[in-house]
Amino acid sequence: MSAPPTPPYWAVVFTSTRTPQDPAGYERAARRMLELARLQPGFLGAESARGADGVGITVSYWSSREAIAAWREHPEHLEVQARGRGLWYADFDLRVARVEAARHFEAPAG
Amino acid sequence: MSAPPTPPYWAVVFTSTRTPQDPAGYERAARRMLELARLQPGFLGAESARGADGVGITVSYWSSREAIAAWREHPEHLEVQARGRGLWYADFDLRVARVEAARHFEAPAG
Repeated sequence: MSAPPTPPYWAVVFTSTRTPQDPAGYERAARRMLELARLQPGFLGAESARGADGVGITVSYWSSREAIAAWREHPEHLEVQARGRGLWYADFDLRVARVEAARHFEAPAG
Repeated sequence: MSAPPTPPYWAVVFTSTRTPQDPAGYERAARRMLELARLQPGFLGAESARGADGVGITVSYWSSREAIAAWREHPEHLEVQARGRGLWYADFDLRVARVEAARHFEAPAG
C-alpha cells in the first residue's frame, strides 16, 4: 500500500500453491480481480509475491470485516473462486485478521 | 504452516523491498532467523514468498502478542533488524494482526 492507514483495519492473507495448469488464464484472472477489488467499498490496498517454488502470498487490506464479506460474495469473484478450487490451486490457506499495529520503514535516499 | 491452529492466534505480516546489496548475507540471515524463530515459545509457523520484482512477503504466526514482542527483542534478532534497516531493505511494512478466521483448501488427489 502506498499510504497505509492507521490501525485498526483488516487484512486477508491468502497463501497458495499453484498447479501448473492454465498460467495465462490465471494471470488474466488475477489482474482482473485486483482491478475489481480496487472498486469495492472499503478496499485499502493489496500486496502480492510469488516465488520460483510456486508458493504465493497475497495480502489485501480492508476497512471492515463487512467489506471483506461483501467482496467474497461478489458474483464475478465467486466464479473465479470456483475456477481457483477446480483448476489453479493445489492448496491454499485464507486468513482474515484484524491489524492492530503497523510500522513503516523507508531507507534514507542515497 | 502444515497444521494451522484454530483462531484466534496472531500473525506478523512483513512486506519488504530488497536493496541489491549483500544477497548472500541476506539469505544466510533469513535462514538463520527462521531457524531461531522456530525455537521461540509461541511460534506457530511461517510462510515466505519473494517475486522477481524484489517485493517479498513473509508472514509468521504466533500464539500471542507477548510471544511476538519477545521475539522482536531477541538479541540476535535485534542485530539482524539493524542490518536490515542499514543494508538490505529499501523499505518495509510490518503489521501485527489477530487472526479471527481461517480456511484451508486442498485439491483432491488425481
